[in-house]
Amino acid sequence: MFKVKVGKKILSENEKYALKNKQLLSESRTLCLNMISSPGSGKTTILCRTINELKNELGIGVVEGDIATDLDAERIRSATADVVQINTHGACHLSAAGVNSALRKLPVADLDLIFIENVGNLVCPSAFELGENFKIAVLSVPEGDDKPAKYPAVFAKSKVLLINKTDLLGPIDKQQFDIETVKSRTRKLNKDIRIFPVSAQTGQGMTDWYDWLKDAVKINKQ
Amino acid sequence: MFKVKVGKKILSENEKYALKNKQLLSESRTLCLNMISSPGSGKTTILCRTINELKNELGIGVVEGDIATDLDAERIRSATADVVQINTHGACHLSAAGVNSALRKLPVADLDLIFIENVGNLVCPSAFELGENFKIAVLSVPEGDDKPAKYPAVFAKSKVLLINKTDLLGPIDKQQFDIETVKSRTRKLNKDIRIFPVSAQTGQGMTDWYDWLKDAVKINKQ
Repeated sequence: MFKVKVGKKILSENEKYALKNKQLLSESRTLCLNMISSPGSGKTTILCRTINELKNELGIGVVEGDIATDLDAERIRSATADVVQINTHGACHLSAAGVNSALRKLPVADLDLIFIENVGNLVCPSAFELGENFKIAVLSVPEGDDKPAKYPAVFAKSKVLLINKTDLLGPIDKQQFDIETVKSRTRKLNKDIRIFPVSAQTGQGMTDWYDWLKDAVKINKQ
Repeated sequence: MFKVKVGKKILSENEKYALKNKQLLSESRTLCLNMISSPGSGKTTILCRTINELKNELGIGVVEGDIATDLDAERIRSATADVVQINTHGACHLSAAGVNSALRKLPVADLDLIFIENVGNLVCPSAFELGENFKIAVLSVPEGDDKPAKYPAVFAKSKVLLINKTDLLGPIDKQQFDIETVKSRTRKLNKDIRIFPVSAQTGQGMTDWYDWLKDAVKINKQ
């Protein structure tokens, strides 16, 4: 019996929608960032502060993913009108199809930047492309500096790592969280990743992140 | 055409192994607890402190689940010899089959209590029975008090909720974490859940948890 090798990869349903999203976003040169972290690492606080800082310079929209509730979308709505909630009803990550429906409710052509806030989960979301330009990982100080070693995928695949809650570096022992340990563990997986230690609560260190965002939007328009 | 209704539920592969584990554990009346939380909420620190406190009274074993590394198993090993590591190599939760292999490497008949430390993930692990007696949820103060509303399944299915890192209640604003808010949101999902605010770092509040464990072991032997 002969086996026929099919050279062309058959796209999964998720990959098909991810490709559709990528096309939709690239038509209007809208930069799209997929924010991934554990629950409670501060993604929503980072987004609220970032939107408040940049909304006069950039058109920003948000796709807000949660298993249940619209608590986060309500927080984002206080910073921008352009937010669409997806409730996954138990699913542990956003799908490209869900994001496609959400994008169709946003004025994509008028936006420079769309954040997708994924379900709080350091494992599953990194395995599903949504059509984003880049993944952005968030790790907060109280989670401990062993996380890049223990949950490598998201750190390996992200363009930027935001180390959040640096305001807790005082009360939390250096044995549990040493920024240099996180940096070296992350760079072992991903030598080109940009790493910004920030506190979305106090604003400390956020300027580097804003500058990176403005540059990335500019490059995406070229 | 007639449709035949099959009354007996066909067990999934996971459910079959969960049942095997349950039988194995119940033969020796060994209490088994499945610890579930986000990454970095302090499961390993809770286990180390608990084992050090109770190891003279109880025979305790640990099944340690991680995507990668044996960092946590090494920490547990300093407290007890009876620890078996499972690396899921990317999978976001432990399976009952994996736990079955691990249990066969532990002296189950000699143990009063086995902790299964699941992969750090507040979503997926709660959907997979491992054959445990009870699920124990851990939520740490820096994660925020909205988590029971946003990730309801694990809070709804657990016998106990440990609210960990209460030593950070000072530096973290009450607007972000109010213990009474967590309690009321959790009890809306699960009115009988036991809730113990603890700090595994300082030991504060741990006595109530130890007492619950000793009682649960005793009841399981009857």
